[in-house]
Amino acid sequence: MLDLIIKNANIITMDERRPVIRGGCVGIVGGKLAFVSEAVPAEHAQEGAKRTINAKGNIVMPGLINAHAHAAMCVMRGYADDYRLDEWLFNKIFPVEGRLTREAVLAGVRLGIAEMLASGTTSFSDMYSNQPAAAGIILKSGIRANLSNGIIALSENFDIEADRSTKELAALLRDHHLAGSGRIRADASIHAEYTSPPWVWERVHAAAAENGLVTHIHLCETVKEADECKARHGGKTPVEVFSEHGIFDTPVSAAHCVHLTENDIRILAEKKVTAVHCPVSNLKLASGIANIRRMAELGVNIALGTDGCASNNDHDLFEEIKLAALLAKGTSLDPTAIPAYEALKMATVNGAKAQGRENEIGQLKEGFDADLIMLDINKPRMQPLYDPIAAAVYAAKGSDVCLTVVQGKILYENGEWTTVDVEKAIAEVKSIAVPIVLGR
Amino acid sequence: MLDLIIKNANIITMDERRPVIRGGCVGIVGGKLAFVSEAVPAEHAQEGAKRTINAKGNIVMPGLINAHAHAAMCVMRGYADDYRLDEWLFNKIFPVEGRLTREAVLAGVRLGIAEMLASGTTSFSDMYSNQPAAAGIILKSGIRANLSNGIIALSENFDIEADRSTKELAALLRDHHLAGSGRIRADASIHAEYTSPPWVWERVHAAAAENGLVTHIHLCETVKEADECKARHGGKTPVEVFSEHGIFDTPVSAAHCVHLTENDIRILAEKKVTAVHCPVSNLKLASGIANIRRMAELGVNIALGTDGCASNNDHDLFEEIKLAALLAKGTSLDPTAIPAYEALKMATVNGAKAQGRENEIGQLKEGFDADLIMLDINKPRMQPLYDPIAAAVYAAKGSDVCLTVVQGKILYENGEWTTVDVEKAIAEVKSIAVPIVLGR
Repeated sequence: MLDLIIKNANIITMDERRPVIRGGCVGIVGGKLAFVSEAVPAEHAQEGAKRTINAKGNIVMPGLINAHAHAAMCVMRGYADDYRLDEWLFNKIFPVEGRLTREAVLAGVRLGIAEMLASGTTSFSDMYSNQPAAAGIILKSGIRANLSNGIIALSENFDIEADRSTKELAALLRDHHLAGSGRIRADASIHAEYTSPPWVWERVHAAAAENGLVTHIHLCETVKEADECKARHGGKTPVEVFSEHGIFDTPVSAAHCVHLTENDIRILAEKKVTAVHCPVSNLKLASGIANIRRMAELGVNIALGTDGCASNNDHDLFEEIKLAALLAKGTSLDPTAIPAYEALKMATVNGAKAQGRENEIGQLKEGFDADLIMLDINKPRMQPLYDPIAAAVYAAKGSDVCLTVVQGKILYENGEWTTVDVEKAIAEVKSIAVPIVLGR
Repeated sequence: MLDLIIKNANIITMDERRPVIRGGCVGIVGGKLAFVSEAVPAEHAQEGAKRTINAKGNIVMPGLINAHAHAAMCVMRGYADDYRLDEWLFNKIFPVEGRLTREAVLAGVRLGIAEMLASGTTSFSDMYSNQPAAAGIILKSGIRANLSNGIIALSENFDIEADRSTKELAALLRDHHLAGSGRIRADASIHAEYTSPPWVWERVHAAAAENGLVTHIHLCETVKEADECKARHGGKTPVEVFSEHGIFDTPVSAAHCVHLTENDIRILAEKKVTAVHCPVSNLKLASGIANIRRMAELGVNIALGTDGCASNNDHDLFEEIKLAALLAKGTSLDPTAIPAYEALKMATVNGAKAQGRENEIGQLKEGFDADLIMLDINKPRMQPLYDPIAAAVYAAKGSDVCLTVVQGKILYENGEWTTVDVEKAIAEVKSIAVPIVLGR
């Protein structure tokens, strides 16, 4: 017997053989997609399902993948906006992060997960502290995540064995990697070129190679970052320096990629590095606008991320999808740049690749894990519905999500979370995290 | 007795004397704001209210003003995306508009109004055909609107008296102007510099002067428009040409303003022309990015518009507010450009000015019309709430609106419309407009 059948759906499969199936159905068993088709296949027609949902024309599509997040930072949502970057970082964000307790971080993770599930994100790549503890919350919530704590080694006496990031990666590998039938993955992580020396990168890279991990990094977010790297490294860009040290010889997912040279883009394409475009954050912090059109032309895998909620201020990937398509058009003066399907691919197929999960999620395809969402189309904003892909990209918001499923399990349905106590999560952020953020 | 009291609200007044009142209350009587204050004033304490709403900390703020819309175009939402501009206009949009019947237009207006009310827009400036008929729908819906039909005079035999736009303006003035206690206003309208000759502009301007109307125009949307104007008019820009013909000597609200010279911006500031920034539409059609930062520096009144849903594809002004703040930062590389309060002002105070309603709406202020909305803050995306203005600008979406009030009347509350039958509106668009759009 199937666990779940969804019938009468406008399905966006993101499977290039047939990207859209109108009036189709999806069958789920054992956390996997048994079929995605026009009608229930003959071999499944008799067995029935524990539950059948009539989508009534609603859009069913792969769950979205947020390839660059700091979920816990939602405790600082709206705490410090419109500041100069140095003032924002050094006088606002870093002091708060220095004060944040483990409990405050975990309260943030809980709230962030609730927000993501309600807005259609089923998997995220997170870089922050306290990841082994966060892994427990993530497992329980049912969401999927790649977890890392970016290594920062600014002191000359840096001891890699004693480092918190090193220890967290070891703990993740020992206790959580591939837990939840693969829902949790540990990522290796270098915070950025400017926060550690090459010998540290090489150690992180070795750990990634040894354990078959993705390495999650920040890359070329600001002009200053690129310029200072060139000054330090004989005119070489962060991309060139990382590449020369072999960091890109294992899979790398690089957030931002705003300030790249043509040669940088060629290196990313050749080395199959994912560029994680974070358009809202890059605009809000005035970092600039990544040239994803050129990256796409040269074959770079482009995923999408929200970044942390101190620079966004939300986890709504639908906003990033629309903005990715829009900014590419508006900055190139070419309205055909990054069409809807390409933008949607960034938050699904390409995001799965960024996470090392390209054979697991990102498409609605037989045998893939059953990570999917449903968009309610019975509202003025989603009508009329000429094209489900255009509707998902240019009209939908996270709030249109009425069903979120990960590995076949319903985690959110019609405004209700099945695994997260949202009232409690909000109350905990208010009582635990807010006083710390405000320094009270 | 008061009609409505809202208590325990985080009020964003947009009144510069005290922009935010925490835990405040609002009293409404006869469609107007009786008070906006920390507590119910003594003189109102005894009289009670027909209804009292406990906001429980929700944000209460002025209803948003969409200063440039073509509401009926939502019947083409998602019908034609990602095309070259000429292909989009001449092969897709114009042929459909040529086929659209009056009934199809009105079905679109109904759906557009439902969408606006549900996402916090309480007043809009609309340029389209069939406005006298639309006025009836608008009056009944309870929303507020400035209506115009932009004059287009491309033929050499153009007869202004026989023109549809001229006749619609006359009908609006005769039958609808200031109806609904001022909710409806007729606007004069010149579609754009490139679609009519100067003698026509002067006639429209005369009608505006005679009747005390705002003139609603499209201005400098594309490079092509600016370049062709210069070729036609001895090197003069559309702004210079309109200015020389006296068009800016009565109030003008000009949509887009993407391609302006420094001198153009100075003229708009001096002549008190409103520039209606439409960031989503300008990006999507690849028109470019308006330099609102420079306009703000030189004192131009900047309002916000969604434009039509064929180039957006929705009526969510919260998206335009956030994007206005973001694009100004991202393109100037200055994160302090257009801070949250300035962006919110564009969709409220400045929008009211654009509509000639600056003493009527746009602020929550005693004596002003009671046009307000409430944002539900009890959801992950709106928590924690350090600053109501930051939350409204950087985190809120139209879907957070849980109450929409125009002239003291509740038009939308917790997912229900009180004056629009939304199921019927959707059904009518599907049955009347969609077959025409698809040419069936």
